[in-house]
Amino acid sequence: MKRKDKRSICPLSCTLDLLGDKWTLLVIRDLFAGKSHFKEFLESPERIATNILTDRLNHLLGHELVERRPSTRIPGRRAYRLTHKGESLRPVLQAIADWGLAHIAGTKMHIQPQR
Amino acid sequence: MKRKDKRSICPLSCTLDLLGDKWTLLVIRDLFAGKSHFKEFLESPERIATNILTDRLNHLLGHELVERRPSTRIPGRRAYRLTHKGESLRPVLQAIADWGLAHIAGTKMHIQPQR
Repeated sequence: MKRKDKRSICPLSCTLDLLGDKWTLLVIRDLFAGKSHFKEFLESPERIATNILTDRLNHLLGHELVERRPSTRIPGRRAYRLTHKGESLRPVLQAIADWGLAHIAGTKMHIQPQR
Repeated sequence: MKRKDKRSICPLSCTLDLLGDKWTLLVIRDLFAGKSHFKEFLESPERIATNILTDRLNHLLGHELVERRPSTRIPGRRAYRLTHKGESLRPVLQAIADWGLAHIAGTKMHIQPQR
């Protein structure tokens, strides 16, 4: 990604410009957990709103982190999955989740990545 | 941290509630890089606004990720530094920065952690 409005060459800052939104990372989490259909993302406990979900999926599609195909499970529906680039975010999500498990009381790893 | 309004027990989601703001993580980055004074954070290339910086430092102090002491360098000023809990975020920042270096054109590791 090349951004004209990039204010910094810092890889942390640039990655946060791309992904530093809670909902974006939660959708990626759900994709890692095997969710693929629009309705499945809506069922996550954080209760993402439909307009935010649409926006974040389009954002992820635009940055080639996610790809969309006709669903093989539900005729007429579309299914989303991580691209290789999207899957490369696994260590990022793992590091964030590991920190939460160690430092935030009451957290528990309830979604097991399927891949 | 125990939050009454926690909607999820997911450690990723809860960590993002705490840290999932770009500016919060950039201030933590600057602390890792050895910055400690209010003015030094303002000088970073992303140009954080003073009111946002004040808010994020108070947020980090409130969650015991940062501590504030009288400056030993500039009389009358205060200096900030990461607590042990704050320093435990190093793998999170490293994972995000590593991803950016690998996937976002034009990024470069220009701030070297001093500790």
